[in-house]
Amino acid sequence: MIETTDLDQALRTALEAATRGARGANPLVGACVLDGAGRVIATGFHLGAGNPHAEIDALRRLGRMDRDQAAELTMVVTLEPCNHTGRTGPCAQAIANAGIGHVHYAMSDDTSAASGGAQFLRSRGVQVTQSENNQPAWELNHRWFRAKAENRPFITVKTAQSLDGRINAPDGSSQWITSDASRNHSHGLRARVDAIVVGTNTVIADDPRLTARTAAGGLHEHQPYRFVMGHRELPENLALAYDNNWEQLRTHEVSVLIERATELGFNHLLIEGGSIIASAFIEADLADEIYCYQAPVIIGAGSTSVNIASVTTLSQARHFRLDAHQSDALTRLDADVMMHLEPLPQRVAQTF
Amino acid sequence: MIETTDLDQALRTALEAATRGARGANPLVGACVLDGAGRVIATGFHLGAGNPHAEIDALRRLGRMDRDQAAELTMVVTLEPCNHTGRTGPCAQAIANAGIGHVHYAMSDDTSAASGGAQFLRSRGVQVTQSENNQPAWELNHRWFRAKAENRPFITVKTAQSLDGRINAPDGSSQWITSDASRNHSHGLRARVDAIVVGTNTVIADDPRLTARTAAGGLHEHQPYRFVMGHRELPENLALAYDNNWEQLRTHEVSVLIERATELGFNHLLIEGGSIIASAFIEADLADEIYCYQAPVIIGAGSTSVNIASVTTLSQARHFRLDAHQSDALTRLDADVMMHLEPLPQRVAQTF
Repeated sequence: MIETTDLDQALRTALEAATRGARGANPLVGACVLDGAGRVIATGFHLGAGNPHAEIDALRRLGRMDRDQAAELTMVVTLEPCNHTGRTGPCAQAIANAGIGHVHYAMSDDTSAASGGAQFLRSRGVQVTQSENNQPAWELNHRWFRAKAENRPFITVKTAQSLDGRINAPDGSSQWITSDASRNHSHGLRARVDAIVVGTNTVIADDPRLTARTAAGGLHEHQPYRFVMGHRELPENLALAYDNNWEQLRTHEVSVLIERATELGFNHLLIEGGSIIASAFIEADLADEIYCYQAPVIIGAGSTSVNIASVTTLSQARHFRLDAHQSDALTRLDADVMMHLEPLPQRVAQTF
Repeated sequence: MIETTDLDQALRTALEAATRGARGANPLVGACVLDGAGRVIATGFHLGAGNPHAEIDALRRLGRMDRDQAAELTMVVTLEPCNHTGRTGPCAQAIANAGIGHVHYAMSDDTSAASGGAQFLRSRGVQVTQSENNQPAWELNHRWFRAKAENRPFITVKTAQSLDGRINAPDGSSQWITSDASRNHSHGLRARVDAIVVGTNTVIADDPRLTARTAAGGLHEHQPYRFVMGHRELPENLALAYDNNWEQLRTHEVSVLIERATELGFNHLLIEGGSIIASAFIEADLADEIYCYQAPVIIGAGSTSVNIASVTTLSQARHFRLDAHQSDALTRLDADVMMHLEPLPQRVAQTF
């Protein structure tokens, strides 16, 4: 029997491993495997959509063994093993097939199509226990849990602004406030999302393609769908209309966009602005993360990145923090500063 | 005779040492001493106002020697040794008295009361040479050279703002956007300047003391003079009027302030805002450095940190950079981000 202190320590190791994964619409998950003496003999983490889940990654790092040996092992994982066949097979089945004797996990996965892993493992004779202290595992993915609970896509807001918070000058000029390195980074975001959201003003002013391009100027393999929000009539032959994977939504209601994106099966949206669109999502408290690219430039006039008409006093401000699980949440991109922010976790803290 | 390549290498060593000094109204200066074979046997740098200059620091690190030995030595320094008795004695005299045979320096000091050091050294029989490549030594202190050339105090602008560039909400509430750590850091700035500059609006809205306080709440030894700029009538019994070291200037003209500060013998001003005052100095291109404290908070309405009515297009933006000679020019202060910025160097680059 593994000691509780060994399980707690292993969970911390798994949480640490989880943070090595890619940020986005998938949860960060880490796992490790303990031998009968409570020693960690393998760790794994989830590298992001399309890659093996943390449990599979950890199993692959184990050497070959017979079923008697496997029965001695404990898998410790930050999130309940999944029980569905998505882009990868169900982890619960892989763990049972490997003959692992005991699974210990932190957060339940009640909200997604992948839930039911613990029940499945028990039905296959695996001992299953859950940590009493799941606050760190919850906090690691609090944004993902919230989006799942609200049955909506994960929402990333991007802003490219000056030191004084401007996204353009009074005449609309905005090319380029931020550096090449910032733009390259934001194109990497585009390549990871299902759809980009922009306003009609941005489309009419800049006629952007909204493609995800590499630093060399080529196209990323995955290109996002494009939503254009707003009431203005769009001109013909828009650059973003290079294929049919786009549409205009004649509204500023974020609920309309979310309903349509959910209908199309989208898990991850990137809100690129301008100010009206980005502000609508900030005001609705729907920014699961913000990438703020800030140039060391003072414009002194023009649109600010966020404008919320209902705000009158400081207590109405929206509070974020630099991503607490990412060492480079504050970094330089050439001359610019990039900040990767998350909302403050909203659940009442538990002891750990 | 020391090789030119040894002198160049020693100058780079001296420049590197210089960057260890304190930022502010004093130039960063580094020095090193070479033996007859061109090897560095001592380095020094200037720790800031009231401390020994770099040359003295380097001389102190040399062992005792007789005049024949000293005559073999070369002092390499990033700035022409000073020739006046300020808070420390003149370096040129100390070098001559030590019997150093050769002084090699990068930047001339033509603009300040301390100039004439090279001439003095020659009059004492010291061989004096100047580097042909003084661009890095100029760039290290380009802001100080400019302020000296313009015969005005060195000007630091401070802004404490939200992620969207706001310094308050529409009702004027601003306490507190930024963290305790940011405020403590900015009190450290107050303790280093001769005077603080604020607008009448700030004084009337917040009635600040404008003292320099330690993190524990005590007072720093040095307390700055207070300038209040603007036309509004001030109430009686202001908190900042705790002694007579303050005055109101009924103007928004930065030239009036600079003239008065120069008259009072001030070398270093801290512009604390609000927006009207900070913007006036930014618009006049008079910010020698900016400390921007930015909280991970989105207010969405209220005053932006800088407003320049004359700006219409992006090409009029003011360009800065994170202090190129400071490793922590971008850093965290608790939840906040602090950026220490300098204007882009304006002189045409020379080869080095």
